[in-house]
Amino acid sequence: MSQADTHILLVNCPDESGLIFRVSNVVYEHKLNIVSNGEFVERKFNQFFMRTEFSGVVNEAVFLSEVKGVLPKEAEVRLTANTKKNIVILATKEHHCLSDLLLRNKFDEGNFNILAVISNYEYLHELTSKFDIPYFYISHSEKTREDHEQEILSLLHQLNPDFLVLAKYMRILSPSFAQSYNNRIINIHHSFLPAFAGAKPYQKAYERGVKIIGATAHFVNELLDEGPIIAQNVIPVNHTLDARQMASAGRDIEKNVLANALELVCNEKVFVFKNKTIVFS
Amino acid sequence: MSQADTHILLVNCPDESGLIFRVSNVVYEHKLNIVSNGEFVERKFNQFFMRTEFSGVVNEAVFLSEVKGVLPKEAEVRLTANTKKNIVILATKEHHCLSDLLLRNKFDEGNFNILAVISNYEYLHELTSKFDIPYFYISHSEKTREDHEQEILSLLHQLNPDFLVLAKYMRILSPSFAQSYNNRIINIHHSFLPAFAGAKPYQKAYERGVKIIGATAHFVNELLDEGPIIAQNVIPVNHTLDARQMASAGRDIEKNVLANALELVCNEKVFVFKNKTIVFS
Amino acid sequence: MSQADTHILLVNCPDESGLIFRVSNVVYEHKLNIVSNGEFVERKFNQFFMRTEFSGVVNEAVFLSEVKGVLPKEAEVRLTANTKKNIVILATKEHHCLSDLLLRNKFDEGNFNILAVISNYEYLHELTSKFDIPYFYISHSEKTREDHEQEILSLLHQLNPDFLVLAKYMRILSPSFAQSYNNRIINIHHSFLPAFAGAKPYQKAYERGVKIIGATAHFVNELLDEGPIIAQNVIPVNHTLDARQMASAGRDIEKNVLANALELVCNEKVFVFKNKTIVFS
Amino acid sequence: MSQADTHILLVNCPDESGLIFRVSNVVYEHKLNIVSNGEFVERKFNQFFMRTEFSGVVNEAVFLSEVKGVLPKEAEVRLTANTKKNIVILATKEHHCLSDLLLRNKFDEGNFNILAVISNYEYLHELTSKFDIPYFYISHSEKTREDHEQEILSLLHQLNPDFLVLAKYMRILSPSFAQSYNNRIINIHHSFLPAFAGAKPYQKAYERGVKIIGATAHFVNELLDEGPIIAQNVIPVNHTLDARQMASAGRDIEKNVLANALELVCNEKVFVFKNKTIVFS
Repeated sequence: MSQADTHILLVNCPDESGLIFRVSNVVYEHKLNIVSNGEFVERKFNQFFMRTEFSGVVNEAVFLSEVKGVLPKEAEVRLTANTKKNIVILATKEHHCLSDLLLRNKFDEGNFNILAVISNYEYLHELTSKFDIPYFYISHSEKTREDHEQEILSLLHQLNPDFLVLAKYMRILSPSFAQSYNNRIINIHHSFLPAFAGAKPYQKAYERGVKIIGATAHFVNELLDEGPIIAQNVIPVNHTLDARQMASAGRDIEKNVLANALELVCNEKVFVFKNKTIVFS
Repeated sequence: MSQADTHILLVNCPDESGLIFRVSNVVYEHKLNIVSNGEFVERKFNQFFMRTEFSGVVNEAVFLSEVKGVLPKEAEVRLTANTKKNIVILATKEHHCLSDLLLRNKFDEGNFNILAVISNYEYLHELTSKFDIPYFYISHSEKTREDHEQEILSLLHQLNPDFLVLAKYMRILSPSFAQSYNNRIINIHHSFLPAFAGAKPYQKAYERGVKIIGATAHFVNELLDEGPIIAQNVIPVNHTLDARQMASAGRDIEKNVLANALELVCNEKVFVFKNKTIVFS
Repeated sequence: MSQADTHILLVNCPDESGLIFRVSNVVYEHKLNIVSNGEFVERKFNQFFMRTEFSGVVNEAVFLSEVKGVLPKEAEVRLTANTKKNIVILATKEHHCLSDLLLRNKFDEGNFNILAVISNYEYLHELTSKFDIPYFYISHSEKTREDHEQEILSLLHQLNPDFLVLAKYMRILSPSFAQSYNNRIINIHHSFLPAFAGAKPYQKAYERGVKIIGATAHFVNELLDEGPIIAQNVIPVNHTLDARQMASAGRDIEKNVLANALELVCNEKVFVFKNKTIVFS
Repeated sequence: MSQADTHILLVNCPDESGLIFRVSNVVYEHKLNIVSNGEFVERKFNQFFMRTEFSGVVNEAVFLSEVKGVLPKEAEVRLTANTKKNIVILATKEHHCLSDLLLRNKFDEGNFNILAVISNYEYLHELTSKFDIPYFYISHSEKTREDHEQEILSLLHQLNPDFLVLAKYMRILSPSFAQSYNNRIINIHHSFLPAFAGAKPYQKAYERGVKIIGATAHFVNELLDEGPIIAQNVIPVNHTLDARQMASAGRDIEKNVLANALELVCNEKVFVFKNKTIVFS
């Protein structure tokens, strides 16, 4: 019996007639009040998505069982209390995305709670400590990728975050690491993907002479930079900016896109389906 | 008994528990398939809005009566076939918004059908004729505002449009005219309202030295430029543009904003409540 | 001796000390009035660019010779009267970019003059004729690419345009055709290049699940879609749009980007250097 | 004799023939290298503006005197070393703009140096101290506006900043205070001015039902919120956001606009003329 202020019900199943009626009937019979409701049907694969936020006291087990009872057997159903999500941040040397999240955490502006920062360098230790967040320095020096990742995974196992945030973490994750937190790792890529995937996107953008640069927040899965896109944004640039100035101009957009994506994810507004996202914003 | 491809049901009433369930139940029992569904609860006034697009054969009278039966008695309920809306365009001398709508009409790109163009000048007659749309020249010269508007209203009475579009119509409508088509007149105002309401907005924007200019599409009611805003958009400007160049730069944004707003309105995606819009986009 | 209202002087040479002083000295001694002036030094290759717009009566030959006399010998110098440029438009089936340019031409809103429209289909003949612009239908059917292009080139040879505009022309140009009008062909590509270069960009954007789509106007050279970018713009999209709806949403941005790029080019505001553009906007 | 890396020369005078030539001649004769150069002529009042950034060793007094010698006698001429500007920040309770500037200061990302933070509350003391910046709490409680401002002015007199930044400082400055730092105070106003000038702009934006909100950075002069606009930016909003959520969404745009404006000002890229800005960006 949960008494959380609001709950979020997430439903994802093949579409058929009457799904909204059936789910809202269960909500109604439990005397719960719908705060907001979103539905979407993906036409190509005929898949139904529903996100319902409701208030009221609910017996979670009974409620979930009844919802499942009215849905097709393939349905994925999830019920979560609408509470802050625990995150761990991985960073390297650049501070701007980390700084932004540390501030939002301190001033209670995001729907997340930072458990710790992990980095392969010491650069950001002092900054992180200012905000009383544990900082774990795990150098990759003289280690195989596998050993380094294993150290991180062991620590993550203890910390047990809901989501992992790559805040300009400049190491490529192995597919097996990615799969350990499949669609629970959020990365900020400093380009408007799929343009300039991979390393040095601002250098590439400069060389190509584009008039707009951007940033992309996406889930990391075994496809790495090709995982499902959550949010993107752009700014105009011109010939007067060199690659370094483009990178500088891009920092503000990077941190904003990452923060927006994290907020959507922590509010359970993002479904992943066929390597794309459905975002109830 | 209507056999239109899809229908749109619009519901607007005080919020209470179970509304989605009750409405979707009626849809389900009529064996209709929901194509898309949107709900919103305005918290300040506790008002519920629902837009449901469905396919299937429906007995409109029976269906509407059943929907009303499950809703609070104050509910406003409307059912429309999802077909093109008939519009009449009022214009003066500037062509760009009119041109844009004539082209969309010709190439079947909008959810509207232009019945006629009415203007207080002859300037746009030739252009309109190229697209085989009737053009009515109703000069305001040597007429009182009342007489001029009465002529237009008589013509509109015959044409019987669903919506009236003011495509840079540079005459101020009287409140009584506005009320004849309350929230059925869509105006494009060449500023980012409420900044620079009234005449000569680009001149004012230039004088104020703003760095962004915009356009606003809104319903006209007795408040004229202060009617409910449907859509807005902006572009950056700088000190090198004088008022005339700002006006020129603004033309593209004006026609796009008007076209977007008209599409939303003709697709029945816009509710008006307390002089604001709720847009299910 | 030219009496055009204003002239534009374009200079492009290795940078060295005193270039602005030397050029402005010549302008001053000819008693010409600078209307606007722009300079830029590309640091990586140390290249100087200058665009000077001036009014006054000028002996072009003498003036040019004196300007060249004060510049390094590798300098590229060009002097043009600031008059409308002649363009020929190539199109296929889609009307929106063509329509937009026809309207701007008719209402004297751009710095260009449309000499003719050439198409490999008859689709857009009627539209073009409404605006009293010659339409040449040159089918590619049962012809080799070479023969088809040769027919177009012969016609272009007679028409002698300053610039060629590909307004959704859906044929790939051969490198030799591109070289005939090197950096004088302006193409609108319906994606935010370099993302989704090549065919079916909206389909690819849909499949990748991007949250922003865009359009790119660029010069065509032997690199085709990889020629120098002139202008780009974007709009947000989301999961509710399929590929066809993205294409529809993209049309407005395509025509605006093409029109902006054409205006920059016709106003001689664009230098090409190392497959990139320097735009004095 | 200054040996700073680069200098910036700012010229502002009635336009006449040969100004660019004359100024660049002086630069040339002093064997200085122009790094970037911008000119603009305001046509309505025939005023000339020039900003020249150059490198090389310069005898400032001699150089300035020679520049003045070739210009009309009304000319305003200024020469500054291109170094970081000293700023003092005034804040109240909201942290986001202050946080952003503290971080840019710490990581050397802006062209400014924070001397101190002054606030009428203690709220932001702890945050400011984390970054080792002096914090002066000057309560307005039980003081006249005049006395409160006098205390601040005394402190400012000692600190002697180049610019004053109002980072969500929620007290209205008196005209006399504003005049003490005329066009040297930069304010961030949380609306797209001139819409919603004055107090509670997000509440007003919500009530008006706008579809876009924004932020404006401007100089404060005796006109307060009507001082010259330096930079503006906007984000889309919709009916689902209440006034509080609009304020939250607006915070990111506020801090970015303020940081952009401050960078322009500290790089001496902004002229003020007739209550408007000319920005060489």
